[in-house]
Amino acid sequence: MFYKPLQTPSRTIMTPGPVEVDPRVLQAMSTPILGQFDPAFTDIMNEVMEMLRSLFQTKNKWAFPIDGTSRSGNEAMLASIIEPGDKVLVPIFGRFGHLLVEICERYGAEVYTMETKWGTVFDQQDIINEMKKVQPKVVAIVHGETSTGCMQPLNELGKACHEQDILLIVDAVASIGGVNIPVDEWYIDGIIGGTQKCLSVPSGMSPITYNDRIEAIIQKRKKVEYGIATEEEFATKRTNMIRSNYFDLAMLQDYWGPRRLNHHTEATSMLYALREGLRLVLDEGLYERFGRHSYHEAALIEGIEAMGLKIFGDRTCKLPTVTCIEIPDGVDGELVRKLMLEQFGVEIASSFGPLHGKIWRIGTMGYSCRKENVLAVLYALEAALIRSGFEPIRGEGVQAALDYYEAPVFISF
Amino acid sequence: MFYKPLQTPSRTIMTPGPVEVDPRVLQAMSTPILGQFDPAFTDIMNEVMEMLRSLFQTKNKWAFPIDGTSRSGNEAMLASIIEPGDKVLVPIFGRFGHLLVEICERYGAEVYTMETKWGTVFDQQDIINEMKKVQPKVVAIVHGETSTGCMQPLNELGKACHEQDILLIVDAVASIGGVNIPVDEWYIDGIIGGTQKCLSVPSGMSPITYNDRIEAIIQKRKKVEYGIATEEEFATKRTNMIRSNYFDLAMLQDYWGPRRLNHHTEATSMLYALREGLRLVLDEGLYERFGRHSYHEAALIEGIEAMGLKIFGDRTCKLPTVTCIEIPDGVDGELVRKLMLEQFGVEIASSFGPLHGKIWRIGTMGYSCRKENVLAVLYALEAALIRSGFEPIRGEGVQAALDYYEAPVFISF
Repeated sequence: MFYKPLQTPSRTIMTPGPVEVDPRVLQAMSTPILGQFDPAFTDIMNEVMEMLRSLFQTKNKWAFPIDGTSRSGNEAMLASIIEPGDKVLVPIFGRFGHLLVEICERYGAEVYTMETKWGTVFDQQDIINEMKKVQPKVVAIVHGETSTGCMQPLNELGKACHEQDILLIVDAVASIGGVNIPVDEWYIDGIIGGTQKCLSVPSGMSPITYNDRIEAIIQKRKKVEYGIATEEEFATKRTNMIRSNYFDLAMLQDYWGPRRLNHHTEATSMLYALREGLRLVLDEGLYERFGRHSYHEAALIEGIEAMGLKIFGDRTCKLPTVTCIEIPDGVDGELVRKLMLEQFGVEIASSFGPLHGKIWRIGTMGYSCRKENVLAVLYALEAALIRSGFEPIRGEGVQAALDYYEAPVFISF
Repeated sequence: MFYKPLQTPSRTIMTPGPVEVDPRVLQAMSTPILGQFDPAFTDIMNEVMEMLRSLFQTKNKWAFPIDGTSRSGNEAMLASIIEPGDKVLVPIFGRFGHLLVEICERYGAEVYTMETKWGTVFDQQDIINEMKKVQPKVVAIVHGETSTGCMQPLNELGKACHEQDILLIVDAVASIGGVNIPVDEWYIDGIIGGTQKCLSVPSGMSPITYNDRIEAIIQKRKKVEYGIATEEEFATKRTNMIRSNYFDLAMLQDYWGPRRLNHHTEATSMLYALREGLRLVLDEGLYERFGRHSYHEAALIEGIEAMGLKIFGDRTCKLPTVTCIEIPDGVDGELVRKLMLEQFGVEIASSFGPLHGKIWRIGTMGYSCRKENVLAVLYALEAALIRSGFEPIRGEGVQAALDYYEAPVFISF
């Protein structure tokens, strides 16, 4: 069987991830690899850890990527903390809250949930009240919920968790690098980011960071593999060891730390990609980058509304990196997406569960978050709507965005 | 803080992985990405599945990569099969046999082991006898043990497993694509490969395949996430669900299969890399590739022995892709490695556990398995030995390899 060289069509990717990869990142990935214990490579590993601390605005000792897609970061964090029977409180406001529940349950947690309507978020005080009732070991919560385009305020939650000796774990896969998340200032104990969203790095790694409260827990569960363990380590019997070997943060620490104890073989090219993606973030400046995300989000919203469409969800808690649009009555949302992709090469997303077929989701993330992409999604959406039998306000979407770009209202941080 | 562009030294990587990545693979990774549900991308996913079936010489329906490094494939396979209390028999002949034990134990298996001296392998009949005694649900075994450079014969084991209704799981991370592993002919139920060894693709994916016996088991444990599950699926309560969400093969099947149910976001650029790596394998031809690995292995061995060094381990079960050398008495193995890396840019490996400091390991894998690399490792090793105070037979290593290359003895398959 003969296979042709890889050929891919040109695409404007405006989903909430994966988004277009910055060309500099693509180029970094074609760098010849190094061995995992080559000092030139371990230097790069250390540098990436340092860059991740800047991204997460933290002084934590531990900040490194998990070698897997975003949910692997969630699983590594939760698997390493949760022992069977531990109480975990998960406030749910979309699909990825359910994913946190799912992971916690699989690792034997006793999960308590609270739910709010998709398209809204929680008052932090309600979560704090629930914490007092449940007295969980962990609160696990999504920050930017891509399935609904909502962002949960977290500025008060971490402090309350600390006061009650509860751990706060945050899934920031869709928000890290796009909106402000001062991890230390917000007392977040452990946080998980994604690469394929606001960092504009391909999917395949999940950067995480966690503090000494979490380190203390995982140290007590540490079990080093035979063949690399010291005699003392090998003699230490554990009944509470972390259930996953791949996601064992105690072993990952020894690999990322000065001991350099072999665990997996670091995903070299993905690490090169992450390094370049982080370099782009830090070169741009964190606050400048957050500003850029809000800037293009605003232009997109102007355009969408000028077209006569409605933004879905509570605007006071809108996630700046994901804009959800209510699909007008009678419009076949999937047909519109298909036309946009096939005719214009522009990709937007649908949603999940109760919102499937009800909303479209548009991402303005990382390298995809730029003027020509916002304009492309507006004109492709307008044309596809007309083509599928719906009449938007013609021409106004793009004009409104152009108006905004000519006289933007900047958001200060 | 200002970070410089990525700069890496030039290296000749002759460890047993990660090895040098084929330039065509590096290039493929710089291709702009596609969305995960873009038909152009799902076509690529299907194509990779087809190519993996050829690599594994199987008619299995399921053949796809796990998005993680090699041990993630081992964990996905074992986690999806093993329920707490299941009996697993692991014959151990090196470090990676211990890793299989480790993973099985973490997932609650009752593990039975048999061990043989590092540097040897098992008589298959001894394993079969032990199977009869233990009556396990699963036999999990390493094929090519990189820590010792030994290869376990497997041609009779699978049939015996089938006759006793036992599953045979094989870790072929270090051998797939380098030596012949006819998965169906050998009745292997589930097998795990690695990318960063004989496929010459960067670390970060683990291709696996498994048959309908394994599919039947995981279907009975299937639990689909809320938010994407049908009502019927959601109503199905499981007490025996797979403990990991990320490694749940039942969900991964629905993502790789026609249902295209969202699980993770496929690691796009790594999949491009894997596709190109597999294309290189299939273009070269499986048997031609196995022949090339044995050819350069033979040249390397000629050179090593002509230099006056000794190959470690039982030669009748030598793994063609990894050559282990006994470190001569009085030689500081780490100093030699350091000199080779720093002065010649040539990287070789040490080993683990009881063999640490006793042997060096040289890989002849994938793109690194070529004449100039074999010659480079020989002259760098000779010079480093002299430099560190040991006297090899000067000049003869490279000459012996050149002699072999001039008049090779081909191994037929």
